[in-house]
Amino acid sequence: MIQLLSRLPGLGPRSGRRVTLHLLKKRELLLRPLIQVLSEADAKIKTCQQCFNLDTCDPCSICVDVKRDQTQLCVVADVADLWALERSHVFRGRYHVLGGLLSALEGIGPAQLAIDALLSRVEVCKIQEVVLALNATIDGQTTLYYIAEKLQPLGVKVSSLAHGVPMGGELDYLDEGTLSTAFVERRGV
Amino acid sequence: MIQLLSRLPGLGPRSGRRVTLHLLKKRELLLRPLIQVLSEADAKIKTCQQCFNLDTCDPCSICVDVKRDQTQLCVVADVADLWALERSHVFRGRYHVLGGLLSALEGIGPAQLAIDALLSRVEVCKIQEVVLALNATIDGQTTLYYIAEKLQPLGVKVSSLAHGVPMGGELDYLDEGTLSTAFVERRGV
Repeated sequence: MIQLLSRLPGLGPRSGRRVTLHLLKKRELLLRPLIQVLSEADAKIKTCQQCFNLDTCDPCSICVDVKRDQTQLCVVADVADLWALERSHVFRGRYHVLGGLLSALEGIGPAQLAIDALLSRVEVCKIQEVVLALNATIDGQTTLYYIAEKLQPLGVKVSSLAHGVPMGGELDYLDEGTLSTAFVERRGV
Repeated sequence: MIQLLSRLPGLGPRSGRRVTLHLLKKRELLLRPLIQVLSEADAKIKTCQQCFNLDTCDPCSICVDVKRDQTQLCVVADVADLWALERSHVFRGRYHVLGGLLSALEGIGPAQLAIDALLSRVEVCKIQEVVLALNATIDGQTTLYYIAEKLQPLGVKVSSLAHGVPMGGELDYLDEGTLSTAFVERRGV
């Protein structure tokens, strides 16, 4: 139990031991409800076979929502990014979860990501715009250009998130890369 | 001495006492060279009467540099922001330092900033583009729109820094405001 708990993100061997003892002390209040909830999640939560989101139904509630724009597709690396975009209420189309980013270091190639599924989905569903909402990291931008190149022959509009000064950002504290990008991509007022 | 040192940014009464004692212990190595350097700075460093930058000469070395574009003016709040932009090597025109930002809370109005000087400089020097490089904070954006409005009758091109995902930014960790701005201002790949 300690070994398994230590493998959770943010926990280590020491906090694994602490959590184990805490759970065993509070069997009624914590351990049994947790067992219940984990079993329910295991039984009910499925991966949407269309967009690879997690939900209790397949296709997921976003994919079956007819009020959402069916011509726009937002490509994200993980379900956590999908949740972040949903919190910002800015996108009213559908998503496509890649399941990660291309990474030479971690040995993740195009075959391990849902890229082929994306390409066929764009063709079959007559998508008009694909927004690549990927991290502004090396892996994110590598994946972005790889997918953009694959999408080019399909004649679909491809866009990516703007780069620049984050909300509340003070110039003096920004790194030089962000500052020069924000300057180069300046816009009329 | 403790009282004065405590008023420096980042220092408080306790660190003021520590610095005082440290300086008095190292008179030869630290206190006297510091007195020397501070007196030299006081004697030599002037405010450029054209752009309000700090330099040993007036007009400052940026204003007299003929290799810099004389038709572009970058408006910044403080000399620290000018230094940040110079570090990023992205701008080859001249600057105009406002000396702060409009702030209702701190009671800073347009008269306390070098805004009138900016307007007459834009007219006299036949500036073609003014880049408002101000913080993405409430005060920064208030100042931006105030100045943009004042510049409008002069027929000069006015632009501001791009907002969006900072370099290295991961979507999951971004605030919702930045994420929605980055999405709305997305660009073609």
